Amino acid sequence: MKDTILYLIPALGLVGLIVMALKSAWVSKQDAGDEKMQSLADKIAKGAMAFLRAEWKVLGYFVIIGALLLAWIGTMKGSPEHPVHSSPIIAISFIIGAVFSALAGYFGMRIATKANVRTTQAARTSLAKALKVSFNGGTVMGLGVAGLAIMGLGGLFIAFLAMFKVVEVQSTEMMTAIEVLTGFSLGAESIALFARVGGGIYTKAADVGADLVGKVEAGIPEDDVRNPATIADNVGDNVGDVAGMGADLFGSYVATILATMVLGQEINAGGDKFGGFSPILLPMVIAGLGLLFSIVGTWFVRIKNETDSVQKALNLGNWGSIVLTGVASYFLVTWMLPEKMSWFNAARGAEFTSMGVFAAIIVGLVVGTLMSLITEYYTAMGKRPVLSIIRQSATGHATNIIGGLSVGMESVVLPILVLAGGIMGSYYFAGLYGVAIAAAGMMATTAMQLAIDAFGPIADNAGGIAEMSQLPEEVRGRTDNLDAVGNTTAATGKGFAIASAALTSLALFAAFVGISGIDAIDIYKAPVLAGLFVGGMIPFIFSSLAIAAVGRAAMDMVNEVRRQFREIPGIMEYKAEPEYEKCVAISTKASIREMILPGAITLISPIIVGFIFGPEVLGGMLAGVTVSGVLMGMFQSNAGGAWDNAKKSFEKGVEINGETYYKKSEPHKASVTGDTVGDPFKDTSGPSMNILIKLMSIVSLVIAPYIAGIGATDTNKGSNCANKEACSMGHNGMGKCDMNKCATMSKAECAAMCDSLGCDSTEKAACMSHYGADGKFKACDKACCKSDGKACAGDAAHCKKKEMGGACCKDTANSEEKPCCKKK
Amino acid sequence: MKDTILYLIPALGLVGLIVMALKSAWVSKQDAGDEKMQSLADKIAKGAMAFLRAEWKVLGYFVIIGALLLAWIGTMKGSPEHPVHSSPIIAISFIIGAVFSALAGYFGMRIATKANVRTTQAARTSLAKALKVSFNGGTVMGLGVAGLAIMGLGGLFIAFLAMFKVVEVQSTEMMTAIEVLTGFSLGAESIALFARVGGGIYTKAADVGADLVGKVEAGIPEDDVRNPATIADNVGDNVGDVAGMGADLFGSYVATILATMVLGQEINAGGDKFGGFSPILLPMVIAGLGLLFSIVGTWFVRIKNETDSVQKALNLGNWGSIVLTGVASYFLVTWMLPEKMSWFNAARGAEFTSMGVFAAIIVGLVVGTLMSLITEYYTAMGKRPVLSIIRQSATGHATNIIGGLSVGMESVVLPILVLAGGIMGSYYFAGLYGVAIAAAGMMATTAMQLAIDAFGPIADNAGGIAEMSQLPEEVRGRTDNLDAVGNTTAATGKGFAIASAALTSLALFAAFVGISGIDAIDIYKAPVLAGLFVGGMIPFIFSSLAIAAVGRAAMDMVNEVRRQFREIPGIMEYKAEPEYEKCVAISTKASIREMILPGAITLISPIIVGFIFGPEVLGGMLAGVTVSGVLMGMFQSNAGGAWDNAKKSFEKGVEINGETYYKKSEPHKASVTGDTVGDPFKDTSGPSMNILIKLMSIVSLVIAPYIAGIGATDTNKGSNCANKEACSMGHNGMGKCDMNKCATMSKAECAAMCDSLGCDSTEKAACMSHYGADGKFKACDKACCKSDGKACAGDAAHCKKKEMGGACCKDTANSEEKPCCKKK
Repeated sequence: MKDTILYLIPALGLVGLIVMALKSAWVSKQDAGDEKMQSLADKIAKGAMAFLRAEWKVLGYFVIIGALLLAWIGTMKGSPEHPVHSSPIIAISFIIGAVFSALAGYFGMRIATKANVRTTQAARTSLAKALKVSFNGGTVMGLGVAGLAIMGLGGLFIAFLAMFKVVEVQSTEMMTAIEVLTGFSLGAESIALFARVGGGIYTKAADVGADLVGKVEAGIPEDDVRNPATIADNVGDNVGDVAGMGADLFGSYVATILATMVLGQEINAGGDKFGGFSPILLPMVIAGLGLLFSIVGTWFVRIKNETDSVQKALNLGNWGSIVLTGVASYFLVTWMLPEKMSWFNAARGAEFTSMGVFAAIIVGLVVGTLMSLITEYYTAMGKRPVLSIIRQSATGHATNIIGGLSVGMESVVLPILVLAGGIMGSYYFAGLYGVAIAAAGMMATTAMQLAIDAFGPIADNAGGIAEMSQLPEEVRGRTDNLDAVGNTTAATGKGFAIASAALTSLALFAAFVGISGIDAIDIYKAPVLAGLFVGGMIPFIFSSLAIAAVGRAAMDMVNEVRRQFREIPGIMEYKAEPEYEKCVAISTKASIREMILPGAITLISPIIVGFIFGPEVLGGMLAGVTVSGVLMGMFQSNAGGAWDNAKKSFEKGVEINGETYYKKSEPHKASVTGDTVGDPFKDTSGPSMNILIKLMSIVSLVIAPYIAGIGATDTNKGSNCANKEACSMGHNGMGKCDMNKCATMSKAECAAMCDSLGCDSTEKAACMSHYGADGKFKACDKACCKSDGKACAGDAAHCKKKEMGGACCKDTANSEEKPCCKKK
Repeated sequence: MKDTILYLIPALGLVGLIVMALKSAWVSKQDAGDEKMQSLADKIAKGAMAFLRAEWKVLGYFVIIGALLLAWIGTMKGSPEHPVHSSPIIAISFIIGAVFSALAGYFGMRIATKANVRTTQAARTSLAKALKVSFNGGTVMGLGVAGLAIMGLGGLFIAFLAMFKVVEVQSTEMMTAIEVLTGFSLGAESIALFARVGGGIYTKAADVGADLVGKVEAGIPEDDVRNPATIADNVGDNVGDVAGMGADLFGSYVATILATMVLGQEINAGGDKFGGFSPILLPMVIAGLGLLFSIVGTWFVRIKNETDSVQKALNLGNWGSIVLTGVASYFLVTWMLPEKMSWFNAARGAEFTSMGVFAAIIVGLVVGTLMSLITEYYTAMGKRPVLSIIRQSATGHATNIIGGLSVGMESVVLPILVLAGGIMGSYYFAGLYGVAIAAAGMMATTAMQLAIDAFGPIADNAGGIAEMSQLPEEVRGRTDNLDAVGNTTAATGKGFAIASAALTSLALFAAFVGISGIDAIDIYKAPVLAGLFVGGMIPFIFSSLAIAAVGRAAMDMVNEVRRQFREIPGIMEYKAEPEYEKCVAISTKASIREMILPGAITLISPIIVGFIFGPEVLGGMLAGVTVSGVLMGMFQSNAGGAWDNAKKSFEKGVEINGETYYKKSEPHKASVTGDTVGDPFKDTSGPSMNILIKLMSIVSLVIAPYIAGIGATDTNKGSNCANKEACSMGHNGMGKCDMNKCATMSKAECAAMCDSLGCDSTEKAACMSHYGADGKFKACDKACCKSDGKACAGDAAHCKKKEMGGACCKDTANSEEKPCCKKK
């Protein structure tokens, strides 16, 4: 039964990829329009590929260096106290993750650059046709990402189970297999970071640059063929919103499943049909089912008439797949999981039920839905937040900016309350596993989410091509209709992405604590609190670097466009073609150059903190990054979205204090300023926060086995006591009193030592309890942490929590082991 | 000896107040200029007083309600498990704190509204004279704040020691005295919040409103007498920058000293000359000395010639008082403290030395200095950050905003690293007491800091009066010189204020943990993590409300000014006087109305979270608020400061890409937008963060005794075990196994219960250890947590950490107490 379902997982991924190929072929078959349209589309496609090639070249070096480093640390075995279970194979896992992530972006972008012009052409016929082409383009992206993720994870897991000869869940072999599998996620998420940041800088440098000179200075419309930066702008939609978003969600998807698997291996699910593997397999199977139901959901996305609501059709598909997945998980959970499960190490959490797991999945679905709805409220036209920005545009640029910043800051309140509720709820139902599976449930319909997301930039591009090709008003009307819906879905997609990143990070955080061998992250300790501060600061410097990069690159773009207008005569009269490729080159170069530093900070800071200060301080830093990153991500994304739609509202005219204002009015100019400020917020730094927090968690997870035991983080509670775990009862039993030393002392000497080290009275008492009535030292008791939860016969008392598989603790005084204990 | 120094403390405060009165009389004696100047100054003074009266009226209700509530909870005694040591007297303490805080603001504002016009008049003679008048005005404010704080705290402490008959440091009487004293800090900080937020909204609504219509629309200079909002703008400088800043620093000053005192009562300083009181007295004595050395420092602030540097004179005074205080604390610490100190409850920290305390003070002074320097770098003219904003002004409003936001975000990096280093350093030297005393050391020269700070708005006002009175260029030149220096000191003052708030909050945080009876804040627990998220969100909603309030009030102001220009003929030709008082009324009304909601959130949210979820979740929330508040405070203050100086740089002309731009150029207009956005950032929401984080900590500290024991925050580690502390060894000894129940069970039954409750193997082992070889339950051991650190004779093992004063734990099975134990 275990093997059947094990092979079913990659098979489901393959189904997704086959459907993707069919849809892709269908899109390619569609009419690509007249020569002019094809030429423009060709320029966009070439520009996009040029960026990908440039990015891949840099990332190639990164992947090689990363793989070598991973292979090297994979050979380490750790100390006897803190054994490491890894293998150099992790390097291969990393490379595959990186390649799959790049592939996911590539598939999406290739189809997007085909679907855009075909959507324009379809819009000449009908809205229904245009929606079909653009949404099918998006679907290809969604299915590609989900299919590759499931096939990759499932396939590698089968391979690693075989390679490391895993028989039991609670075994060092399984730990090795899972640790090696984290390499896949690390590879995927690293590429995602660079794709998101690089793509984000690219698209906004082009967009801001094009707007500033084109719209503001030269007074030509957006997407005007005379603007030298217009091709770069359209390329940007593809590299940022399609490839970047795809890589981002690919990373989240993989990381969520993986984190749940890591926690799953800590769970005693004896009595299931899968040899105890069910908690590990469950997230992959849910993902596979979610993929199937996403395919089903795409059938609902269709309209018949010009006046049908596109948004409704998309909602129907989205809701269909979510509800189907929710219902299916009930049966899946009942079938796969035993009724009750417990943690092998009971300190990790209480017992929970299969219905608790189902409830946690529902919590995840609800959190994801609420986050999307709240994001939509804060960024949609006609709602209070956007209306307030419009009103504040009447008094100028500055008040428009103040209004947008205020809306963005306000917009974090409800999502955080929902998230906090979701954390507590899913934890209540199934402990830490519940938090992770909630994230997995939320991410199950990623294929559908991404299809809806990627549809947006395709429609946007289609409109751009229609404008540049000077097609009839009617065509542009249809693409505008799709584009407007795309703006809303882009906003809700961002809400979904940040919620998923937050839950994923929490799941990774929980997994990290398990693997790094700490049992608390106590912010009351000064170094941990310092870690929290430093972690909280990182999203600020990351955002600062990202938006400054956009500012700089946009200035380069502005100067280049001004130069072309000045030096190439006849551009404005359509007599000469601008040098589009120079603008493309500026964006490409800037984005590649500027993505290095933020990426490096993300990757290196957890390594430095982890190896110098140890896992508990690193845990504090991760918490800081997660909280601050989620807040900054939502603040920036929502402010940007609200500014964007405040500006868009002027197209149909807005009423402020009884007067109606249209485009080119003073308030509209103020709203353009807000939109331009919002551009890097919502498309560069804001969404990068997702990957920042996930990637730092994954890096920490990968290094967790190596830093276990580093750092006297517990400066006053006794982690310096090397043997405390072997000999004490509570985990902070004896403070700094070293039993090895006490063993050579009299009771009075040991008491003096405890005092001098600042042990408190209970710690001291624990030390004293090792002296017999005669005042002589007696060796500590021995005990097992047996996987069945039963203690050894005899004077069971103490054991090492960290050691798994029922291994006995070693008595330092005499190293015999009780017969009931299994050898490691 | 104890009494001598006890009475010396308020005496030092009185010295400060006497010097203040002398300086105040000197300023009042100075020439107030011609009739026109006096009339303008009179309008400003009346407007300021009108605001204070309106504010006091609202705050009067608040103080009465707050006092009644405090008196009521002061009567509660808590449960036997968690006794509360308080008294209804806390209400009186609260009222005195509130009144003193209001008085501090009032003193400062009254002298500032006198010093402004006298500075203008003095500037007709010489720069030296103008500096003398304006700096003496600032000194009055500084001495008033520090003198009131020291006299209030010292006097109340003497009164409470007598009232509650405190004899020993480790006693419930002392706990009561200190808890009641926290009321003083709560009163002070509550008033500070409203003063800062209300004042901040007032000043920026007037400033933004005046700028938008005056400078931008009507094209008249700042402070032009024809602008109806100009008086409101000048009033704003006094109510926001003087009264608000004064109340803020008064609050920080009191809170820091108090937090150190709270921690001081936990320290065993046996062997000092003050009956063990030295760690409690030390922060007050340091503050008193700092006040004296601040008076000494003011002597250095003088110049002789027109070309002398005002900044240098101020620096000399500042450095003088800091160095003198640092040197003096060496002798003070050596004299007052015993060589070695330990914590009564050893779990709170390791032993430390008096030299460690001195080192921690130096860490505090260094952190404060570095924070000021870094802030100056990020906001000063001619440095990279401001220059980068200037450059980005060339491409328009949007890039200017992007540049400023980017600078603001970047500016948090170094301060956070300094702060993290400061936390670790001071903790390393003297544990939690070190963190608190570092903050106290930093705040010691508050009088000087505030003198320098308050000098800024006085000079600003003086310039305004010179402009409005159309005095000669030469006079305006001198006031501009002072004003420019004032801008820099305002920025560094904000850096100092946020650093002090951060350290103060940490000290309060440490004090809170001690009083609420928890011994860890484990963010790995889901509810605590949820608390961290919610806490992190609060600075965002607070900022959002504050800047939105400014936006709204500024719009009202704009509409009123437009109306006056339209409806009152002859304003622009100086023929009719604008209705200044209407603008003053708008600002006053708006600020009072808008300060309520943010204030309520700050005060109520810790109460709700504390009473529902208990101290550990509240601790998580406090950590979230502190980290996020410090980051948002620095981000906003520094971005605002940088924008301001980027705009100011245009006055002398700036070079961008080889061209020089002056005022009224396009880049200058863009820089005005940035400045306007920065106004609420740097003067409303940014500095409010200080008070937000301090006040939430103080509220938590006040409610801490009442929430001890609330909330099953430890959902999986056994806090449900009512008797675990009485009977277990480590603090999480036995998981959920209730010893009361086990006492009625056989060993096997108890084992089954442990399993069913999810206890882990060590917890279970702890339970099992209570069964004898015959399988029967035996009562647990009894032990003391004696204050001298020695355990009871006999089989000492377990005790309640939370109970102080050497009280024995009660054995639930048989309630005898060992003879060595003291009664509570």
